[in-house]
Amino acid sequence: MGKNLTSRAEDYSKWYNELVVKSDLAENSGVRGCMVIKPYGYAIWEKMQAQLDKMFKETGHENAYFPLFIPKSYLSKEASHVEGFAKECAVVTHYRLKNAEDGSGIVVDEDAKLEEELIVRPTSETIIWDTYRKWIQSYRDLPLKINQWANVVRWEMRTRLFLRTAEFLWQEGHTAHATREEAVEEAEQMMHVYAEFVEDYMGVPVIKGTKTASERFAGAEETYCIEALMQDGKALQAGTSHFLGQNFAKAFDVKFATKEGQQEYVWATSWGVSTRLMGALVMTHSDDNGLVLPPKLAPIQVVIVPIYKGMDQLDAISEKVGPLVKELRAKGISVKYDNRDTHKPGFKFNEYELKGVPVRLAIGQRDLENGTYEVARRDTLEKESVNAANIVTKVEALLEDIQRNIYQKAIDYRAEHITQVDSYDEFKKVIEEKGGFVSAHWDGTPETEDKIKEETKATIRCIPLHAEQEDGTCMVTGKPSTQRVLFAKAY
Amino acid sequence: MGKNLTSRAEDYSKWYNELVVKSDLAENSGVRGCMVIKPYGYAIWEKMQAQLDKMFKETGHENAYFPLFIPKSYLSKEASHVEGFAKECAVVTHYRLKNAEDGSGIVVDEDAKLEEELIVRPTSETIIWDTYRKWIQSYRDLPLKINQWANVVRWEMRTRLFLRTAEFLWQEGHTAHATREEAVEEAEQMMHVYAEFVEDYMGVPVIKGTKTASERFAGAEETYCIEALMQDGKALQAGTSHFLGQNFAKAFDVKFATKEGQQEYVWATSWGVSTRLMGALVMTHSDDNGLVLPPKLAPIQVVIVPIYKGMDQLDAISEKVGPLVKELRAKGISVKYDNRDTHKPGFKFNEYELKGVPVRLAIGQRDLENGTYEVARRDTLEKESVNAANIVTKVEALLEDIQRNIYQKAIDYRAEHITQVDSYDEFKKVIEEKGGFVSAHWDGTPETEDKIKEETKATIRCIPLHAEQEDGTCMVTGKPSTQRVLFAKAY
Repeated sequence: MGKNLTSRAEDYSKWYNELVVKSDLAENSGVRGCMVIKPYGYAIWEKMQAQLDKMFKETGHENAYFPLFIPKSYLSKEASHVEGFAKECAVVTHYRLKNAEDGSGIVVDEDAKLEEELIVRPTSETIIWDTYRKWIQSYRDLPLKINQWANVVRWEMRTRLFLRTAEFLWQEGHTAHATREEAVEEAEQMMHVYAEFVEDYMGVPVIKGTKTASERFAGAEETYCIEALMQDGKALQAGTSHFLGQNFAKAFDVKFATKEGQQEYVWATSWGVSTRLMGALVMTHSDDNGLVLPPKLAPIQVVIVPIYKGMDQLDAISEKVGPLVKELRAKGISVKYDNRDTHKPGFKFNEYELKGVPVRLAIGQRDLENGTYEVARRDTLEKESVNAANIVTKVEALLEDIQRNIYQKAIDYRAEHITQVDSYDEFKKVIEEKGGFVSAHWDGTPETEDKIKEETKATIRCIPLHAEQEDGTCMVTGKPSTQRVLFAKAY
Repeated sequence: MGKNLTSRAEDYSKWYNELVVKSDLAENSGVRGCMVIKPYGYAIWEKMQAQLDKMFKETGHENAYFPLFIPKSYLSKEASHVEGFAKECAVVTHYRLKNAEDGSGIVVDEDAKLEEELIVRPTSETIIWDTYRKWIQSYRDLPLKINQWANVVRWEMRTRLFLRTAEFLWQEGHTAHATREEAVEEAEQMMHVYAEFVEDYMGVPVIKGTKTASERFAGAEETYCIEALMQDGKALQAGTSHFLGQNFAKAFDVKFATKEGQQEYVWATSWGVSTRLMGALVMTHSDDNGLVLPPKLAPIQVVIVPIYKGMDQLDAISEKVGPLVKELRAKGISVKYDNRDTHKPGFKFNEYELKGVPVRLAIGQRDLENGTYEVARRDTLEKESVNAANIVTKVEALLEDIQRNIYQKAIDYRAEHITQVDSYDEFKKVIEEKGGFVSAHWDGTPETEDKIKEETKATIRCIPLHAEQEDGTCMVTGKPSTQRVLFAKAY
């Protein structure tokens, strides 16, 4: 397997597209903007799902499932929500096809036109709050903390595998609370849960913060977010958690009786992460040789490749490797022993490098004689010879070390790419030449934000949580500002 | 919580609908034919998924994800497939809404009409085989054994929760093989995997067999099925596995180079089970008091209800119960200690009976003094007092016994409801009065099958696997027949 990957330096965007396809994560389908998530990519997503699901349940959430379709009228009920989501969406207008009368094939049956069009869900606040009206009567029914794993569709004009696709997979949490405070606390908690997952499992450092009014979710009063930095200096929003106030409760008339017997509107949150995280994973760690996967999410953590001439040698190696595979698996490590005789060791080495398998063990005739394995780690590409007696301990230590090392590397990269600037000229220069996050003072108005976006393509990624309060002046207008915000060009 | 369930004897169908809603499994949504699967129902489905997924992986399958939308032209490529699926489906014709010019709300934007309509997948053979063409070149790429967990839509006119809904959740396996024999073996294997799951986990006995030509999946050469019997004497198809021959490979031009270098079409299977299984689960075991859940799939296996006056008594009980909860959980048993002070014990007893929790422990002041628990089992409603020292062993034994007992009860019911008949008059009488499976000789023609269906509403559920070969004559036409087939009215 030749890799023939475009290098990152040459064309980062091309490198990404090629890598996602060649490493068998995903590919474009025959349906515009919709991707096929291939088994290797899906195995990573499954590991993400399993861990996130565990964390959601530990914080008291239950899973449920709501309809794929949303009646058009539902979308219209929350004014800003419809502005944000009703525009680019898949609209179901008919429920039957028929044979064309001229025998030319099958056509839409005009007799089967829906009275009201159905929208394929771009997000489920409306259908869920329409349901919550039936589920919530009293304070005893609160809080209601539900999550859904689902597919959603947003009709994007320019799509890229994982980063922006018409259909994508995600989870969406939707909670209902008796008080504003409790809902805000929930929204903040989920931002922290996301940050913990993305940092500890994906090895991707994030900055927590809130969005400006113009970058908020359509229908939210506050959007909390975690922002990551990719290797090309562009930011990527890795997860958002919204405090929705009483907007959806009012739109769908969801009230509850308080302990004191009063009728009040319910407070809401929603929060989600999607298969977009796969893009963040690829773009944070991978290199010109292929994927670099964090051991905690790698479908195959260790691959063992035999190097042999003739079946006798292979048999001797397999006899040695068999018990090792068992021992590693007993420790919960996923191991693949690749004894295919249709491919050469060099081909296999290339393939597992491309696929980002964290640890590779190779064993040949000489290793057999010396009682050793050749151990290679994917993150640094370092190799060493290790005594077979110590191999399990070595592998365990390596998996931990790789997880730690790629995270630290990403932290170091980010630290080098947060630049503090005090003038707009400096800002433009950094955004254009160096990239990364730029920390600057801003006057808090959407007008200035728009101007900066228009002139530099940089947006305010977040107002960092617990940012230092300092007196300053907006780099564009010179108006007073009390804290810096983070700008970047973004995916 | 009053149950107020219609009894099965009174109106089985009403009983089912009420029970599904009242026990919090699912409910109808505001979208015609689409259901909301509520947290308690979804928790059961998750347990089903987890076990099935494990069994699929153990038999060498990997998960992947394919697009929700299928271009209209794809559906047309396999002639019998389009007949079966293109007719009642959700058709996406536009990709944008806009504000109406008269300010009346949002309307479909006619400028955003798709060149080719997209169908919301009713099943994914076509989009998957269009993808497989790119994945399969040589015998080295085979077998390809992939499964997908997904939502699908079939526009049903008459819908019922779980049993027949416009949108439902399912898994669909799609495999590709180098030889007919291997594909047939795969299709048969998955029928056996389904049977094992449905019998061992759901406690629902099934009959394995093949469908007649007219009941086959659209595009299949052979459909294997497992058929279950509900308490009202109607059959329910619990899972199907199809041998697709080379039909889809030919329709989508999927060829592979054999070891000898020849180009041949690939052989295919597909197989699926859906949330319909939830309906089978409810209708096999439940009674007039509510759900009866098999311990292996029950979200809560044991509930503990304290019976107390005043907080002192509750504290004393909680002190006793705390370590028991821990001990049971350590054994992998899911336990809920319901110490809510907003509801009375009687209410709680009713609620957990309705929800089918297999084992209920109650503990009051006198139990505390005597060192006992009152133990109730949901399947037989029997109660006994058990010494606290033996309670863990007792609970473990009960969970196993309940799993075994409800399965045996279902087997006994079925044994009483398979009737062998030799005349059409007898057949009609049994179908009408007793229900259940009827074993009879049939001449093997679709004409006779149709006539029987039309006259009695009974269909051939399956040609049982390894059925005894015996000379007989068709009960309708008198033509010769070599084995009996199973008829029933069905869901």
